[in-house]
Amino acid sequence: MALVVQKYGGTSVGSIERIRNVAERVRKTHDQGNQVVVVLSAMAGETNRLVALAHEMFEAPDEREYDVLVSTGEQVSIALLAICLRSMGYQAKSFLGHQIPIVTDNAHSKARINRIGDKKIREALEDRTIVIVAGFQGVDHDGNIATLGRGGSDTSAVAVAAALKADVCEIYTDVDGVYTTDPRVVPEATKIEKISYDEMLEMASLGAKVLQIRSVEFAKKYGVVIHVRSSFNDNPGTLVMKEDKDMESVLVSGISYSKDEAKISVIGVPDKPGVASQLFSPLSLANITVDMIIQNVSQGGHTDLTFTVPKSDFKKALSLVEGVAGKIGATGVDSDDHISKISIVGVGMRSHSGIASKMFQVLADEGINIQMISTSEIKVSCVVDAKYTELAVRVLHEAFELAKKDVKMESSF
Amino acid sequence: MALVVQKYGGTSVGSIERIRNVAERVRKTHDQGNQVVVVLSAMAGETNRLVALAHEMFEAPDEREYDVLVSTGEQVSIALLAICLRSMGYQAKSFLGHQIPIVTDNAHSKARINRIGDKKIREALEDRTIVIVAGFQGVDHDGNIATLGRGGSDTSAVAVAAALKADVCEIYTDVDGVYTTDPRVVPEATKIEKISYDEMLEMASLGAKVLQIRSVEFAKKYGVVIHVRSSFNDNPGTLVMKEDKDMESVLVSGISYSKDEAKISVIGVPDKPGVASQLFSPLSLANITVDMIIQNVSQGGHTDLTFTVPKSDFKKALSLVEGVAGKIGATGVDSDDHISKISIVGVGMRSHSGIASKMFQVLADEGINIQMISTSEIKVSCVVDAKYTELAVRVLHEAFELAKKDVKMESSF
Repeated sequence: MALVVQKYGGTSVGSIERIRNVAERVRKTHDQGNQVVVVLSAMAGETNRLVALAHEMFEAPDEREYDVLVSTGEQVSIALLAICLRSMGYQAKSFLGHQIPIVTDNAHSKARINRIGDKKIREALEDRTIVIVAGFQGVDHDGNIATLGRGGSDTSAVAVAAALKADVCEIYTDVDGVYTTDPRVVPEATKIEKISYDEMLEMASLGAKVLQIRSVEFAKKYGVVIHVRSSFNDNPGTLVMKEDKDMESVLVSGISYSKDEAKISVIGVPDKPGVASQLFSPLSLANITVDMIIQNVSQGGHTDLTFTVPKSDFKKALSLVEGVAGKIGATGVDSDDHISKISIVGVGMRSHSGIASKMFQVLADEGINIQMISTSEIKVSCVVDAKYTELAVRVLHEAFELAKKDVKMESSF
Repeated sequence: MALVVQKYGGTSVGSIERIRNVAERVRKTHDQGNQVVVVLSAMAGETNRLVALAHEMFEAPDEREYDVLVSTGEQVSIALLAICLRSMGYQAKSFLGHQIPIVTDNAHSKARINRIGDKKIREALEDRTIVIVAGFQGVDHDGNIATLGRGGSDTSAVAVAAALKADVCEIYTDVDGVYTTDPRVVPEATKIEKISYDEMLEMASLGAKVLQIRSVEFAKKYGVVIHVRSSFNDNPGTLVMKEDKDMESVLVSGISYSKDEAKISVIGVPDKPGVASQLFSPLSLANITVDMIIQNVSQGGHTDLTFTVPKSDFKKALSLVEGVAGKIGATGVDSDDHISKISIVGVGMRSHSGIASKMFQVLADEGINIQMISTSEIKVSCVVDAKYTELAVRVLHEAFELAKKDVKMESSF
């Protein structure tokens, strides 16, 4: 007997019929003797409908009340699943964030989980009740509803799994697992059997949208094994877990890309202490996340600073930077929002050299100019013109033999 | 400065635009220096949508989970009103049943309010915050959501007004107030300025659907003055309050009718102790409310028993009665679901005789046969063939001069 947390996304609970399918899957797991906790998203489209209502009322809705509004989506889906399971003769009970409680800070619409009470869930599980938890929502220390941000149900599920020390946290979605790259770009992309937390973090934050990044951080911190799989079939998916030796033998695990960033360059910045701080403080105050930052070697006491920001914050960031550029004595500001960041990710890089230079060579062979480079222990990212995105991903996928990897592994059984 | 509770029904908050109108009305009351607590229903159609979802999932949805589902409707509307008021620069805060708390028993989908915490609301009001409360919902002693039944938001509003000792509980709806009868049947029907709790109870329970009957009982118990008025204009509506001398001078205040009942007769029942109990116990166990009960004088040791039940319970009631009729030695069961109950209501009846006989005479003059009669201190009800409903209401309205009443009162100013 295991304690299994299962999370189903919006597509998986998108209709009464699909909720019945979820109930069937939950029932099976329960009937196999497992204790089952289900975490649900809102029915597909429902959160968007609620968000649109809020913005129809006011362009910048009050955040506390916004959370009261949008958290109803999950309340509807958990009630419907509980009704379904009870109609099938099972003990099932829905729990809202405040009923568990899932205690968060008060950063409405992007709250972080501080604590999860496990008492009520454990009591229900010991009574052979199927526990159904509303994803995406918690309650702050003053009893206000707080939501975790888009995709927050993944985080809810992993946090509940951590609090209960669950054996596995199954994240059901509409894809079979995590792929070596986006199969819409490279049809030969293969499903990854196992991936380390760190690799998944790089993949997720770099644009592979299977799992919310915070849920992976949470899983890493508490050692929760995540199993990403499809709710439409019984195929095994991808295990996201602690690094093991198998993983290290693979040089590159996957290739991700992101078109969601824009680039800003500040030209001719005087090379003296405090300048970077003057430049980035206003962005930080405006809650704009700066991703890559590149500063060239100083020439004649001046340097160029280039960085990327989320495309959605591009205009705001640009106007802030233009405001401060004069004050710090820069000679100009350049910008480009038609860029793409291509990344290769793999824990195997740590013990192998030459991965980065192979990447540069492959791109150069196709005549793709690299605008920015950034590296970490387990990834190399290059910013290129957005029009080269698909080409770059395809040639890299081929060069690092990702399409063939699965076959190799199977042949070693 | 007064403490005003305002309740807006589903039609009044049926769209973003209408919620803006509500906000404008709330703002005005607030700006006049009053403390304002707003209680809202779900947006028109929303509760029906949620109920349909529940029944699409299962015909007899689990009641606890049904409440989790349907209570989201009010959560949406209070959040939207709070967003609107805050966008206008007002301090406004929404409260769900569990946040106040509005503590109920655990009779899901028809819960009764046991207790309302006034601390959080008072704190907010003292801070000049507009308090927005979700109608229809509360929380039981175990923290489960419990709803009060259809129209329960009226009861929420009156209960909150009672807990806060509010100066008035304004119930905003899509009609101008309580009329002497249904204006769709009698265009000359006039708005009643003041009506006593008891009259309103008779009117409401007899089919005038302006206020939920439980809210009037609550108001009577705690002496809450209810002002029923329209959210679409500034006309004064109807005050529902303690009886005063003005009211007694009016013989009949209003005429109500109900087509929502059906009649069952048990023929040839042995006239001995325990028979009525044997007959009605199964109905009570099945939660079927029996309204009028008439037992004729015994003839030859046998009697006929006739009673009415809600039309929605008619088939169930009939089969239960047919099951028990043989056991108690009855000779047969008759039934009719094409009946209508016409009632005249007025506290003035207490001190005047001849009201009932005038009613019988008026109906007889039109050739309308009376099938059942029941009376209380302040009302007389007659069951007639449903096809005579409108005719009966019209002739009674004329006979008791209700169309002229308003004119009379105005001429005495």
